[in-house]
Amino acid sequence: MAIDVALQFEIEDLYSRYGALLDDGPLREWPDLFAEQCLYLLIPRDNYDRGLPLAIIRCESRAMLTDRIRAAQETIMHEPRYLRHQITNLRVTNVAGAHIEAIAHFSVMEVLPDELPRILAVGRYIDVIQRRSDGALEFSEKRCVYDSVLVPNTIVYPL
Amino acid sequence: MAIDVALQFEIEDLYSRYGALLDDGPLREWPDLFAEQCLYLLIPRDNYDRGLPLAIIRCESRAMLTDRIRAAQETIMHEPRYLRHQITNLRVTNVAGAHIEAIAHFSVMEVLPDELPRILAVGRYIDVIQRRSDGALEFSEKRCVYDSVLVPNTIVYPL
Amino acid sequence: MAIDVALQFEIEDLYSRYGALLDDGPLREWPDLFAEQCLYLLIPRDNYDRGLPLAIIRCESRAMLTDRIRAAQETIMHEPRYLRHQITNLRVTNVAGAHIEAIAHFSVMEVLPDELPRILAVGRYIDVIQRRSDGALEFSEKRCVYDSVLVPNTIVYPL
Repeated sequence: MAIDVALQFEIEDLYSRYGALLDDGPLREWPDLFAEQCLYLLIPRDNYDRGLPLAIIRCESRAMLTDRIRAAQETIMHEPRYLRHQITNLRVTNVAGAHIEAIAHFSVMEVLPDELPRILAVGRYIDVIQRRSDGALEFSEKRCVYDSVLVPNTIVYPL
Repeated sequence: MAIDVALQFEIEDLYSRYGALLDDGPLREWPDLFAEQCLYLLIPRDNYDRGLPLAIIRCESRAMLTDRIRAAQETIMHEPRYLRHQITNLRVTNVAGAHIEAIAHFSVMEVLPDELPRILAVGRYIDVIQRRSDGALEFSEKRCVYDSVLVPNTIVYPL
Repeated sequence: MAIDVALQFEIEDLYSRYGALLDDGPLREWPDLFAEQCLYLLIPRDNYDRGLPLAIIRCESRAMLTDRIRAAQETIMHEPRYLRHQITNLRVTNVAGAHIEAIAHFSVMEVLPDELPRILAVGRYIDVIQRRSDGALEFSEKRCVYDSVLVPNTIVYPL
């Protein structure tokens, strides 16, 4: 497949903004990267590879993502923490008109107060991206497939 | 050196496929990224920096890489594990016709069952890339120079 | 903001050289990536987010960066160690003529003798880049905002 350099850059920029909003905020703008009707799944790799539908987080609209973020922010139960995404190895695997499929590798490091950084999760994003009428790209489907078998109980925010 | 944007993207895509095949498979297709006559070295940084030839893994053809992968897959001695590559900081350091030299930084995270991810290795790839008659890029030389002095005994698969 | 693909690549290359010089040397060439009058700050995220000026390292010229590197190299007090930068999620946030603003995420892994790699720091670079009269890009301001609250006492070299 020939690579469209400009498109690839647009997609890289979408992922960069995705990571920046989750790590540095404003978090309330993060759902704007998704289509109004979308699918967001946080799913362990074992389940994904076996075709099992069970996801740790499942949101089916931008509104649900907004609720999810609000709930995470209002939860006092969890310690304050910083996250840092690194999104690499982007591959555009299919382009059919405004329908784009892409895969990328991610790591999320977590920093708790008075501790050194640790790895929260690594895995891959398996995504469908589409173009809005205003020309911007947005995620219509996002599967965050993390490699751990363990469910980190500290996953409060989306990966 | 002026940067050829389209070439740089092709090379990034080669690295992305390299990581995807190692982490998510099919692993048997990974040797196809190499020239039939090639050099693959897994070498500790101390040795590389001192010009010492000792490598932990040394393969001199695509067929040897295929054997290596098959042996790793058939070994029952090692626990199942997931790997996740992140390849960044790509620099094309020389282009002379179809001969391309490139350097990139890598990290490989390892996830064992019921454990959180940990760092298996970090380091740099020091590579020579060439163009096939069908137009695709392939590695003719790949030196995986890892920064650890320790040899992680869990390195079953290539880095 | 429309993305200038060629400019984005030039900036990515600047970051790749930045990481390569810190990790693989020659370290003495690292200050050449900065303007003669520049600002380099290593600053904890808590301070940055609250607008507090306290930085762990503050250098206000290329000459000060050169001194810093020399001091680090001459210090016998610290164990030898290897570092590995991964710089990702680059976003060009503003371009006004020769004045460029960019943000990127970084991780720095540290490898001590006879130990496996560990995470030294993660965070983001918040940078101002300018073009020299010879056409090359250089950092005029670099803020290395690391996510840890702890000050790793092993930060001998710049991040």
